[in-house]
Amino acid sequence: MKLMQLGDPGAEVPAVLAEDGRTYALSGLTGRIDGDFLAGGGVERARRALAAGTLVELDPVGLRVGPPLARPGKVVCIGLNYRDHAEETGAAIPRRPVVFLKDPATVVGPYDPVLIPRGSARTDWEVELAVVIGRRARYLDSPRDAAGVIAGYAISNDVSEREFQLEYSSQWDLGKSCETFNPLGPWLVPAEEVADPQALALGLAVNGEVRQAGHTKHMIFAVDHLVWYLSRHMVLNPGDVINTGTPAGVALGLPGTPYLRAGDTVELSIDGLGTQRQTFIDA
Amino acid sequence: MKLMQLGDPGAEVPAVLAEDGRTYALSGLTGRIDGDFLAGGGVERARRALAAGTLVELDPVGLRVGPPLARPGKVVCIGLNYRDHAEETGAAIPRRPVVFLKDPATVVGPYDPVLIPRGSARTDWEVELAVVIGRRARYLDSPRDAAGVIAGYAISNDVSEREFQLEYSSQWDLGKSCETFNPLGPWLVPAEEVADPQALALGLAVNGEVRQAGHTKHMIFAVDHLVWYLSRHMVLNPGDVINTGTPAGVALGLPGTPYLRAGDTVELSIDGLGTQRQTFIDA
Repeated sequence: MKLMQLGDPGAEVPAVLAEDGRTYALSGLTGRIDGDFLAGGGVERARRALAAGTLVELDPVGLRVGPPLARPGKVVCIGLNYRDHAEETGAAIPRRPVVFLKDPATVVGPYDPVLIPRGSARTDWEVELAVVIGRRARYLDSPRDAAGVIAGYAISNDVSEREFQLEYSSQWDLGKSCETFNPLGPWLVPAEEVADPQALALGLAVNGEVRQAGHTKHMIFAVDHLVWYLSRHMVLNPGDVINTGTPAGVALGLPGTPYLRAGDTVELSIDGLGTQRQTFIDA
Repeated sequence: MKLMQLGDPGAEVPAVLAEDGRTYALSGLTGRIDGDFLAGGGVERARRALAAGTLVELDPVGLRVGPPLARPGKVVCIGLNYRDHAEETGAAIPRRPVVFLKDPATVVGPYDPVLIPRGSARTDWEVELAVVIGRRARYLDSPRDAAGVIAGYAISNDVSEREFQLEYSSQWDLGKSCETFNPLGPWLVPAEEVADPQALALGLAVNGEVRQAGHTKHMIFAVDHLVWYLSRHMVLNPGDVINTGTPAGVALGLPGTPYLRAGDTVELSIDGLGTQRQTFIDA
């Protein structure tokens, strides 16, 4: 069972994609898939309703796929969390997670166009495993407690403007928070259906050419460590998202590789979490 | 007329404080003061209802003062925006605004207790002028357009844990996003009632000793420049907050000055925007 939101921006209908490939509306259970839904046991209620056959089937043809999460409270990002990516950018291997934030309003659907900011010459891609929080996490005792607060996983494209990020000041958030810079989805896959978040291949291609081909087993700080670490310094709330870092293969790390231009298409995939495809256009 | 929210956390009632010192409930107009209220002309509707005498008076005695804005979408912070503060921290005078983000869930009321994070030895204060956005701002043509998107102003305490901020990684957000780290209010003062946001004295005292005594005329980048600059790199939405930076006088810049400990009280004030007072306690 995968959770989705289908329909025009701001008017998405919550839905589940069942194992048999059929899509069912969740409108009877919730108006949206958000932190309140997740904190209120929504995933389990959706599962029971699907099993009981009480959901109304939905024809998804022609419907836009929105992000599988409405109104994320915050988007926490982890920088340099794959050794090969840290090396390609010339950065040292971090001894603690490098933590920054992204404007949560940047979250868009997985097939929505992405805007290249005005004045940008260095818009870049980053395929990442996104963790969606389902229960409040505050001062977790150990990484073993992390699983209890994770609602599920999704693909995230942590789109980045490298000049805004790295050259305008010491702080990266400006180059991470441009309009439409966080395609998310297509699915929120419940944590119960992801046997091991550290056993997922993830990849990205630009105009059909593979640029990133990584694996979550190469994370420097694993998902459970990240959730525990963050909870010791901030409160993680239901509906928060953690982008867990990107493997090697971004334009920043590939001398001679062009940054994104209007008309380019980017495709992303993570084992079991589906695929994304965005066309980049000028803002 | 000042906008407020009164009552227990999560159950605040929107209100206005009139020029005659009386408080009136806004419950007939809106459930909360948030981005939707501001974008929908809520300030003007409140003003008209107050003038028409249609609001019900409210006895504020014994009611907690909450933050004057519910569910901020994001909190954008400007670092090193006063020359004397940049100098005291040993940083260069920035050529562009230094932009970072703070978890919007850190926003609390102006008299709420503030939690010193576990393991913190360097919890610090920062009085700042907060700008609250009332209309969507995207690629503003010039700083002259900024006034049209600002709903109002408030006092903000940009509480900071210096070890988390400066020593754990290159990125500051971790030390800015701890639980309760953004007291806001007591009032959202409509922009029409602030003749010049660059003509405000702002100050902060710890246990009665003045630590910060600054003036917004000393900002390196003025409010209109900041709003314009940010709008060129991200979308500012109604209900977003901009913390515009702090003047000199933080513990980080005052050798020998103790950082905050449980039991300390911090008082903040900005001309025309009221006062805040927090007691710090251990998380």
